[in-house]
Amino acid sequence: MTYFNTSLEDVKLLKKEDYPEKGNTKSKMRDDLDALIKELDIKDGASISFHHHLRNGDRVLVQVMRAIQRAGIKDLTLVASSIFPSMAEIVELLEDETITNIVTSYISGPVGEAVSKGKLKGSIIMQSHGGRARAILADEVEIDFAFIAAPSSDQRGNISGVNGINSCGAMGYAISDARKGKTTIAVTDYLTAYPNYPADITEDYIDYVLQIDSIGEKAGIVSGTTMITKDPVGLKIAQDTLKAMIATGLVKDGLSFQTGAGGISLAVADYLRTYMLENDIKGSFASGGITGYLVDMLEEGLFEALFDVQCFDLKAVESIGKNKNHLRMSGSQYGNPDVSCVVDNLDIVILGATEIDTDFNVNVTTGSHGMLMGGSGGHQDTAFGSKVSIIVSKLFSSRIPFIKDRVDVITTPGNTVDILVTERGISINPLRKDLIEKFEKAKVKTIDIHDLKKYAEDVMGVPKKIEKTDRIIGLSQSRTGDILDYIYQVK
Amino acid sequence: MTYFNTSLEDVKLLKKEDYPEKGNTKSKMRDDLDALIKELDIKDGASISFHHHLRNGDRVLVQVMRAIQRAGIKDLTLVASSIFPSMAEIVELLEDETITNIVTSYISGPVGEAVSKGKLKGSIIMQSHGGRARAILADEVEIDFAFIAAPSSDQRGNISGVNGINSCGAMGYAISDARKGKTTIAVTDYLTAYPNYPADITEDYIDYVLQIDSIGEKAGIVSGTTMITKDPVGLKIAQDTLKAMIATGLVKDGLSFQTGAGGISLAVADYLRTYMLENDIKGSFASGGITGYLVDMLEEGLFEALFDVQCFDLKAVESIGKNKNHLRMSGSQYGNPDVSCVVDNLDIVILGATEIDTDFNVNVTTGSHGMLMGGSGGHQDTAFGSKVSIIVSKLFSSRIPFIKDRVDVITTPGNTVDILVTERGISINPLRKDLIEKFEKAKVKTIDIHDLKKYAEDVMGVPKKIEKTDRIIGLSQSRTGDILDYIYQVK
Repeated sequence: MTYFNTSLEDVKLLKKEDYPEKGNTKSKMRDDLDALIKELDIKDGASISFHHHLRNGDRVLVQVMRAIQRAGIKDLTLVASSIFPSMAEIVELLEDETITNIVTSYISGPVGEAVSKGKLKGSIIMQSHGGRARAILADEVEIDFAFIAAPSSDQRGNISGVNGINSCGAMGYAISDARKGKTTIAVTDYLTAYPNYPADITEDYIDYVLQIDSIGEKAGIVSGTTMITKDPVGLKIAQDTLKAMIATGLVKDGLSFQTGAGGISLAVADYLRTYMLENDIKGSFASGGITGYLVDMLEEGLFEALFDVQCFDLKAVESIGKNKNHLRMSGSQYGNPDVSCVVDNLDIVILGATEIDTDFNVNVTTGSHGMLMGGSGGHQDTAFGSKVSIIVSKLFSSRIPFIKDRVDVITTPGNTVDILVTERGISINPLRKDLIEKFEKAKVKTIDIHDLKKYAEDVMGVPKKIEKTDRIIGLSQSRTGDILDYIYQVK
Repeated sequence: MTYFNTSLEDVKLLKKEDYPEKGNTKSKMRDDLDALIKELDIKDGASISFHHHLRNGDRVLVQVMRAIQRAGIKDLTLVASSIFPSMAEIVELLEDETITNIVTSYISGPVGEAVSKGKLKGSIIMQSHGGRARAILADEVEIDFAFIAAPSSDQRGNISGVNGINSCGAMGYAISDARKGKTTIAVTDYLTAYPNYPADITEDYIDYVLQIDSIGEKAGIVSGTTMITKDPVGLKIAQDTLKAMIATGLVKDGLSFQTGAGGISLAVADYLRTYMLENDIKGSFASGGITGYLVDMLEEGLFEALFDVQCFDLKAVESIGKNKNHLRMSGSQYGNPDVSCVVDNLDIVILGATEIDTDFNVNVTTGSHGMLMGGSGGHQDTAFGSKVSIIVSKLFSSRIPFIKDRVDVITTPGNTVDILVTERGISINPLRKDLIEKFEKAKVKTIDIHDLKKYAEDVMGVPKKIEKTDRIIGLSQSRTGDILDYIYQVK
């Protein structure tokens, strides 16, 4: 406190004529995107952030970036929590150098391909969801302008994800942007009376409210698989995964659980549900991106609460508006390694993988031919925080081999990946001697990951190395800020 | 982003052997206050913060400061959002120089008297509630250790004000401390299973959870007047205040309203309630410290929502746990002048005053003989933000004259104070020509504040000047950080 170091006699009093005029009546409302971009006076080289809660239905990122392009501003860093196929137009903005750097946690579709092909002048940094919150809150990633797609807002910027025609439910990934964005703009197509509630972001975090015709299509929130697999191979893996979970000893009262929205993962949740009902087990919480399957389990009393950072389907959106124990969480509360966070309290997480290697490193960042087609999302965070992380995958699901000596890109370090369940057996990370013992006691058969790899190669042949150029186009960052791997331009 | 300025080829990858070990299992739980104080390694000169949501029932501040005293740490700055009579023991800590500076928004009882008598070695800075949030968030007031009285917490520091034996409801003033405290300690007597919800402060903001026998007595939350006055003079003032409110033209659909918990203020709320019911008026929101009277108005549909920064009585505590439109707000959201905040949206605020002067400056900081016995709280913030601020007071309520040429200490600048209602007439600030016109049209009689003063002096005699020493012991700070007035040691 300044005044403690000075003699109070020397402190000057504010003169009557200098008292600030009563009332803050400055309007935040704007209704012309191009005029606002001009008013914001965005400089070349600035960083612009977006959240992805409308997922493939988002139309805010493209509209705003197009307006910035029209204004002739160049060399921007795009800090988007995720980038979806619907944002294909952004490729043109890489080509004309409107955007020259990208920081994101997930990228799929044409923009990912364009980046992989070298169309981004600068580089791409791939972060986990928790790592993104950490980097923003720690001022490692600075945000000059945060454009926050708002399913509803009042004139003062109280934003709610549950009201509006394009309600997306939770808005966890936008919280760090709202807190740290030097200028923050709520972009909405649904203006409410003051006060808009329940607010995910309150007016004290918002500088402008821009009203536009449409922020997107709510139906696009449901992207990727959000249905239980019907494939018998997938169902077998899910059944074996439940067996593995039980063998860990963690499936009991107080269980905390997370699973993604992939077909096998959802089947695991479904088998778990039946097992918990039959054995009268009451869990503590489920977390992550939330699906209707987890909402059902909440409403059946199988979990005490849900921690929801983003809604994966419309049933989850509906639930967060009505269920008191369907809790919102920010990206930081979810997985920021600088603080204590929800992933630290997780017993079991079920995760997918594009590739895994014999050190249990997982790649969910690049796909066939080394093309960017994903990213950590919460993968790294939950693998680290959980007592047991389980990768579920078919051994033979595409032309790409699943188990390798070294994954193309390390998304999640192997020392945090504990169990792999495939249709041809369960492998345990040799670091987890405790689990190996437990599985022996429980008489659940396991197989060394090298043997599993050999089996796959016997069937499929030894994979060819992915051919790439020697130009590094980006980095796979660990949630704590270190760099796990390079990402190369593809041929 | 660091990596955008370097050649990616030069970025070093994290080696496998340096991967952080899986899992964050560090316990935050502590059960010995003295041992924790030792562990925290608090240095001489550090700043220690507390919130006051348990008001006169708080026992956390005294217990913690006593432990710090036992540890022999000296020269601390006490950053307490308010200081109550129940904290009388703190006087000893001023005397032995455990505490040498104080930053607060309200101080009453023995500690205020001791400071006024010169027992604080350094100085006292008196801030508004919004000014406190501003100063903390802007790093003007740094907090080394934030001790947060937690009516309930789980082992990871999810704090809820609505659960627990000493539930206090809203925890708005603790939010800035949780965000900015370099080390944050939840102090609780009610440990819940994980996750504790609804959380006012989530685990990502909390470093330690200290379990103690008792954080206080919930009954002590109800301090000061929280009953409608029965005094006929007070009731007349309240009736005239309603007339004045109506004359402003603001009492109509969409009204936003704030009132304190004083007897006359509550009577105003009661008359307003009847008027709104009779005239079928539906207001927008009521805000501030919330009482049961406002809860009734919410439940009757007279307001769309309540913004609650602290609960003034147990009915408010009960309501915030069950009414979806009884909203929590942080001190920053309430009144931080650096951002848009709830007070900026207020139509009318009803406020008390210890003294007012002919420039309409208000003193609620010092009382008889210039002794510290209050503070701005939200006074400055709401007077500034509201369209119309109304001071309600009896002209003759004690031996101290109410209207003076210059108040003893300027708490709230006169240019933000619009109307004064007394039993002998209504005075309008001459700056508000618009209001003077409206009152003329509405045929509501007003009286020049100088004439009101003269009338009072004719009855009571001209007040003697308060005699003080010439030692400045503290400063009355404006919400924006400027200094409005000196506070002198009393004789």
